[in-house]
Amino acid sequence: MAPSAIPIPSTTSSLEKEGIARSLEKTAPSFTNGSTNGITSSDSTLPELDASSLKTTLTQNPQPVPLPDSPEVLAQKTCTDHMITCSWTLTTGWQTPELKPYGPLTLMPTASVLHYATECFEGMKLYRGYDGRLRLFRPQLNCARMLLSSARIALPGFNPDELLKLIVKLCATDGEKWLPKERPGSFLYIRPTMIANDPALGVQKPKEALLYIILACFPRMDKGQEGMKLLASKDDMVRAWPGGFGFAKVGANYGPTLICQGEARARGYDQILWLFGPESSVTEAGASNFFIVWKTRVGQTQLVTAPLSERIILDGVTRRSVLQLARERLSGSDDNVEVVERKFNFSEMLEAYDEGRLLECFVAGTAFFISGVGEIGWKDRSLTFKLNEDGCGRYAGLIKASLKNIMYGKQAHEWGYVVEEN
Amino acid sequence: MAPSAIPIPSTTSSLEKEGIARSLEKTAPSFTNGSTNGITSSDSTLPELDASSLKTTLTQNPQPVPLPDSPEVLAQKTCTDHMITCSWTLTTGWQTPELKPYGPLTLMPTASVLHYATECFEGMKLYRGYDGRLRLFRPQLNCARMLLSSARIALPGFNPDELLKLIVKLCATDGEKWLPKERPGSFLYIRPTMIANDPALGVQKPKEALLYIILACFPRMDKGQEGMKLLASKDDMVRAWPGGFGFAKVGANYGPTLICQGEARARGYDQILWLFGPESSVTEAGASNFFIVWKTRVGQTQLVTAPLSERIILDGVTRRSVLQLARERLSGSDDNVEVVERKFNFSEMLEAYDEGRLLECFVAGTAFFISGVGEIGWKDRSLTFKLNEDGCGRYAGLIKASLKNIMYGKQAHEWGYVVEEN
Repeated sequence: MAPSAIPIPSTTSSLEKEGIARSLEKTAPSFTNGSTNGITSSDSTLPELDASSLKTTLTQNPQPVPLPDSPEVLAQKTCTDHMITCSWTLTTGWQTPELKPYGPLTLMPTASVLHYATECFEGMKLYRGYDGRLRLFRPQLNCARMLLSSARIALPGFNPDELLKLIVKLCATDGEKWLPKERPGSFLYIRPTMIANDPALGVQKPKEALLYIILACFPRMDKGQEGMKLLASKDDMVRAWPGGFGFAKVGANYGPTLICQGEARARGYDQILWLFGPESSVTEAGASNFFIVWKTRVGQTQLVTAPLSERIILDGVTRRSVLQLARERLSGSDDNVEVVERKFNFSEMLEAYDEGRLLECFVAGTAFFISGVGEIGWKDRSLTFKLNEDGCGRYAGLIKASLKNIMYGKQAHEWGYVVEEN
Repeated sequence: MAPSAIPIPSTTSSLEKEGIARSLEKTAPSFTNGSTNGITSSDSTLPELDASSLKTTLTQNPQPVPLPDSPEVLAQKTCTDHMITCSWTLTTGWQTPELKPYGPLTLMPTASVLHYATECFEGMKLYRGYDGRLRLFRPQLNCARMLLSSARIALPGFNPDELLKLIVKLCATDGEKWLPKERPGSFLYIRPTMIANDPALGVQKPKEALLYIILACFPRMDKGQEGMKLLASKDDMVRAWPGGFGFAKVGANYGPTLICQGEARARGYDQILWLFGPESSVTEAGASNFFIVWKTRVGQTQLVTAPLSERIILDGVTRRSVLQLARERLSGSDDNVEVVERKFNFSEMLEAYDEGRLLECFVAGTAFFISGVGEIGWKDRSLTFKLNEDGCGRYAGLIKASLKNIMYGKQAHEWGYVVEEN
C-alpha cells in the first residue's frame, strides 16, 4: 500500500483531521507528499524512519525456545532473542533503528506514556508454513493502520513501508530458531509498538517517542469445540463512541474494558459482546470483530458484520479478509451467501435466534483468529450454538480453513507474504 | 475521608460495579470491610499498602533547585531528589514502599501499561505558605479519587489513607529544600501514579503493578490578564461518553485529546472547550472543569457548571471547592449568586452572551488553578470577555483569592493540610 493511499475516514472531524495532518507534516516528511486525503505534504528535512540504516547487535545470551502450549507460552511473557527499537524526537526526527538483544526499556517516571496513554500498537503473526517457509499475512495493512493509530494518539508519523521492512528483518533474524521448521503450523505473535517517552509531564503532544517491535511466544487462542462464550454488555457500558477513537489501535481502547472483561471471565464467559447505544447495536466482541450468519425472513443467507462508518470498531485485517473471502467463495450457487456490512441490533439477533434463523456467530481477529461462538449471555437469556469439531459453525469453518491455508502456505495467495530467512 | 465513604456513583453499571468490587476484594483486603456502597468486604490476608513500613534511602547526588519560571521549570521535566515507589502483585499483595533517589523506571517491552493504558494518576500541589509552612489542599479527596480511578482501570485497590501518608512523607522529605521558605507562594506539583508493569502481553487484568509518587517543578499555569483562549469542539469530536470513563483520572482520557488540543494551540488557542452530544452540552475545558456566571432572564445571577451525573466529567477537587465556597460566600445579600450544577448547552451560553447576560467563564483545576476565560472560538464566532488584572472576572477572582488564602496559609481552614517538615 502506498503511503498516500492511507485513508483518513471521511467521517473524521475537521479539527482532528487537520491536527493529524499537522502532526504528520512535522514528523513524516516526504512520504506524505501529494496525498490529498487528509494527510498533507511537507517539505521538512528531518530524517525519516529508514530501515536500510538498521544497526544490528546480536545477543550473546540466546534463550531457549519454549515448547508449544508450555507454561512459558501460556504466560505470554516470553519474547524471542531480539527486538528492534527506533527513537524519534521532534527536533531530530527518526534516529537509526537498532536490532538488539531483547530486554527492558528505561523510562523516566514522568514519561508521557505512563500518564496520558500516548501509545499505539499492532498485532500480527509470523507463521511457519507446511512448506517450511515463514509468512506474514497482509502485513501492509497492519503497517498502514499503525500510522493511522499513531496519528490519532499524537505520536509521530513514519513511512509504513519502512516499518514493514523492520518487521521483516526481525522475523528473518529470529524466525529460524523460534519457529523451527519441524513445527509447521506454529506461529509467533508480532507486536509493533509506539510509546511517547517524552519526560515532560505537561499534557501536550509528545516531543519524544520510541518505536519498538517484539516477537512473543503466544498460545493458540481460538477455542475448541465448545466455542467462545460471550457476555453481552449492558446499555450503560460503552467501549467506544462516535467522535472517539474506537477505530484506532491505541491503548486507551483496552485498559478501560478490563474490569468488565474480568467480571465476564469471573462469571464463566470468555469476552464481552459490546453493544452500543439505546438500540443495543452490536459492535465488537472482546477485542475482535464480530460476525453473524442468519437467514432473512425471505430465506436469504447473509453474513453480517457492523460497518466501519461510525468509526467505533476496528478495521480488522482478519475482518477485511473474512468479508473478501466470503464474497469470493461463499456467494456462488452452492452457498449463495450475501455479505452485508450494516448496523444491526441485538434485538434483531435475538428475534432471528428465537425464530431459528440465526445460524452462527463468530469472532475474527489476529489473536483469536476465527473462533465460533458457542454461547451468548444476555440478561436472563442464554443463546447457544452447536459447533463443529473445529470450534466453528459451517461458514466460519470454511473461512477459517481458507485463511489457514493461506497463512501456512498450503495455498499460494497474494495475502501470504513470504519472509526470507537470514 | 474514611475509605468506606468512597462512593461508586449510583449510575455505575452493575457489571462494572461488580467488576470493581471483585477487583478490590482481591487487592485491597481489609479497608473495604463494611462498605456497602459498591465496594465489598474481603477476608484476604495479603499485605496491604502500608506507609509505616516505608524504607528510606536518601540520595547521594542531590540536584540543584531551579529558579521559578526558569527554562527547567517551564520544561516540566525536573523532579525533586526523591520518589516513592511500591510494588504490588496479585499473589503477594503490596510490598514494602520505598523512598529513594529519583530516577528512571525499568519496564519490560511487554508491560501492560505500554500497550493497554493500564494507568491512572492524581494531580496535587504542595504549597509553601506565607506563614512558612507547607500545605496540601484537601489531599484526602485526591487519594480517594485515585482509588476510584485505579479500580476503573483494573489496577489494584489500596487504603487511600496510606497513600496520603506516603505523599506526606515525600513532601516532608523534599519540601524544605525544593520549596525554600524564602519563596512563599510557590508550589511543587505532586503526581501519584499507578501503572501495570505486568509483563504478560495478553489483554487481561494486570497481575503486577507499581505505585509511585513524584514531585515535579511546575510553572504557574493560570493565565495573565488576557485569560485563556478556548476553542469549542465540534459535534463529532468527543472526549468522553456516558458508560465510559470520563469521570476517572486514567491515561485513556488524555492521550486521545492531544491531537485536537495541539490543533487548538496551533490556531492560537490554549485549550479545547469540550461540547458533548447533539445539543452541544458544555462539559470540560482542556483537562479542567468549566464554569460560567450568567444572569438569567429574570435577573438572577447564577454560577453554573456541568453535573457529575452522567459521569463524563471529572469530579474535580477544585470544582468541589469552587462550588462550596460560592455557596458559602457568594450567596449572601451582597452577591446573591445561585450555584447550579446542571446540563447546559453552548447555544444557551451563546444566547446569554448575545443578550449581554454572560458575565464570565472560567476553568478550575489543579494545574490551571482558577483561570478566567478571555475568549471562546466557536465556528465563525468569537466570544470575548474582559478580565481584571488577576486574569479573572469578578466572581472567579473572589473565589481564586479565597482559595489562595487557604492554600498559602493566609487563612486557617480545614482544607489546608499542614505537612510537618523532616
